[in-house]
Amino acid sequence: MSFTSMWDALAPVGRQADGGYGRFAWSDADLTLREWFAGEAAARGLDLVDDGNGNLLAWRGDTTRDDALLVGSHLDSVPGGGAFDGPLGVVSSFAAIDDLDARGVELDRPLVVGAFADEEGARFGIACAGSRLMTGSLDAGQALGLRDRDGLTLAEVLRARGRRPEDVGPRPDLLGRIGTFVELHVEQGRALDLDDGAAVGVGSAIWPHGRYRFTFTGRADHAGTTPMDERQDPMLTYAMTVLAANKQARLLGARATFGRVEVDPNGTNAIPSQVRAWMDARAADEGVLEDLVARVTSQAADRAGRDGTAVETTAESVSAEVAFDAALAAELSTLLDDAPVLPTGAGHDAGVLARHGVPTAMLFVRNPTGVSHSPHEHADETDCLAGVDALSRTIEHLAGAR
Amino acid sequence: MSFTSMWDALAPVGRQADGGYGRFAWSDADLTLREWFAGEAAARGLDLVDDGNGNLLAWRGDTTRDDALLVGSHLDSVPGGGAFDGPLGVVSSFAAIDDLDARGVELDRPLVVGAFADEEGARFGIACAGSRLMTGSLDAGQALGLRDRDGLTLAEVLRARGRRPEDVGPRPDLLGRIGTFVELHVEQGRALDLDDGAAVGVGSAIWPHGRYRFTFTGRADHAGTTPMDERQDPMLTYAMTVLAANKQARLLGARATFGRVEVDPNGTNAIPSQVRAWMDARAADEGVLEDLVARVTSQAADRAGRDGTAVETTAESVSAEVAFDAALAAELSTLLDDAPVLPTGAGHDAGVLARHGVPTAMLFVRNPTGVSHSPHEHADETDCLAGVDALSRTIEHLAGAR
Repeated sequence: MSFTSMWDALAPVGRQADGGYGRFAWSDADLTLREWFAGEAAARGLDLVDDGNGNLLAWRGDTTRDDALLVGSHLDSVPGGGAFDGPLGVVSSFAAIDDLDARGVELDRPLVVGAFADEEGARFGIACAGSRLMTGSLDAGQALGLRDRDGLTLAEVLRARGRRPEDVGPRPDLLGRIGTFVELHVEQGRALDLDDGAAVGVGSAIWPHGRYRFTFTGRADHAGTTPMDERQDPMLTYAMTVLAANKQARLLGARATFGRVEVDPNGTNAIPSQVRAWMDARAADEGVLEDLVARVTSQAADRAGRDGTAVETTAESVSAEVAFDAALAAELSTLLDDAPVLPTGAGHDAGVLARHGVPTAMLFVRNPTGVSHSPHEHADETDCLAGVDALSRTIEHLAGAR
Repeated sequence: MSFTSMWDALAPVGRQADGGYGRFAWSDADLTLREWFAGEAAARGLDLVDDGNGNLLAWRGDTTRDDALLVGSHLDSVPGGGAFDGPLGVVSSFAAIDDLDARGVELDRPLVVGAFADEEGARFGIACAGSRLMTGSLDAGQALGLRDRDGLTLAEVLRARGRRPEDVGPRPDLLGRIGTFVELHVEQGRALDLDDGAAVGVGSAIWPHGRYRFTFTGRADHAGTTPMDERQDPMLTYAMTVLAANKQARLLGARATFGRVEVDPNGTNAIPSQVRAWMDARAADEGVLEDLVARVTSQAADRAGRDGTAVETTAESVSAEVAFDAALAAELSTLLDDAPVLPTGAGHDAGVLARHGVPTAMLFVRNPTGVSHSPHEHADETDCLAGVDALSRTIEHLAGAR
């Protein structure tokens, strides 16, 4: 299977009417993608291992050694996401194996293609759930109790899919066999396009990143009969917090976004009793991230005082900065014709494995619009093929017979 | 059945864990309430007529005359609404009949107890749907095509409930038999409590009122990787519009509320592609209402220009001011020991019938907190019984044998 025919096979899976994708953990679309992965692994004679957390690892070579080279990414999407975020890395990995085979390259180290489960956290709210469970940085009991928007726990969903929740948890045995991880991913900004014109870049670091749930509580009232000065309207406090987050992120050179909101009772003629909203915040260093969150929280509290509402902030997940292996990044940049080395604001399974101590690198494929998490996410086919070539050369460099 | 025992019988129907009510048109709870209504009508020997729109009319006396006195209200609720908004008027009507019978009052005019369908519009988005259909001010074809949040049309819902969508439409024959309508309703503000201390007031007018849908369109993007100055985030435009609506309503002595919002894709790490929100706006006169909407719309458009987003505003429904029959209101105020006469910001079926030319009055029962459309909506039992007494005296005054 060529890169293009694999890509075309995946195109319809979980695609919505507007061209966006809904590929959530353990959905029908996700199961179809898992079957596709198993088929591609089998077609190349790879041994498929499911680690119990839903992470798929397709193995070539000695499965008992401790220096395997892992390549891959994830297959799930955000709601209404693009086709590239995740699948590009998995498809490119299989295509890179085909390229190595076509070139007759012999490998000294075991090679593994991986697809991590629920990277986006779109269903249960915790990003990189699969890799975090595997490394033990997410507690299995906590994860199994997470609920999706229909109120189902992860444990219930796994059981309904014929899986064993009791198999969820850390896998030091498998991680101990992995010597290096290289994740290829579509770039989620325009740095490559704007600065260098290179089709492929090498990752240096992932910005610190947090998800914060804001719960604004007021008092439900009739929208038509309650005088403006007798209201306790949490929508006002929310609205001001959205604008404060945007302003503070600009002032600090950071990023803050309110992209998800839930309103009770969400009726046209009812002042809400409660508004719950999630802030995604990222910054180049942890001090700035903390400062950003403190400023937004404090402005929200001030406004709540004036609105007669209450606001509570909970950090649902906070990830420290991840610096990828600097020597490895430099080595790959040199190998790939002086590819630019750049940080990213997005979290990745690569970050989870790097934090766990696995020497890790990322390859980014140019995104001409910078748009991601959107039906309009795009990468040119020539750039995708350049990514396959770069990954193939990287595998040969790191694992090829000397 | 006493007022209290009828009240207690209704209390569990559609009640949610937090004490609020979910009694939406044609839901299981709504059907239970309709059965209850039929039972109370039968127990008093009233002839029950369903007008095809779901409005229930229970008739005592000659059904062919044109001067029947209609009393009643509605049984449905907003999401998470209170127990009183609607049912108080229906229960009080049955209790008033019992009071008249106990006092041996003979009536000269036919008396009808009514429960109008889908007054709140909580399911299909159009308030007073039952009375509007009956009077012809809402087109049957338009109503039958309305969809609830699950995507079901009213026609589909009616058919699933064993009803005939082809029976939906105006009923001039029934309306022609009604000479006067008196709707008793819990007050949805604190005017009675604050100003007069009277348990019962008489309605003078309903403020002009509109529901406006704002559609804010931007561009979906990754929350972590898209620089702040490359975003087209419609949540920012929405947030500013919420604050503008609040401020302008205060400046104009009007009311404006954003209580319902829908976000696409509504993911924590995705800048939204679209935010849809509904503004409920009311003012003491139509000029002020128009001014309010114009100011908010213009500020939203200005902000959209700065955010790189687009905003579209659609008036989903706009109701002109309704002045109730002034002579009738004065007459009832005098009858009821100089009860205060007051306007309301809430729409009612009484307004729909008044606009249709039916001489109409409203009685309001004191609400000590002013809270409505909320689990905390409340009226004291002594005030509710004062309402029954006032309604009984009103019926005797308007329909009693001379």
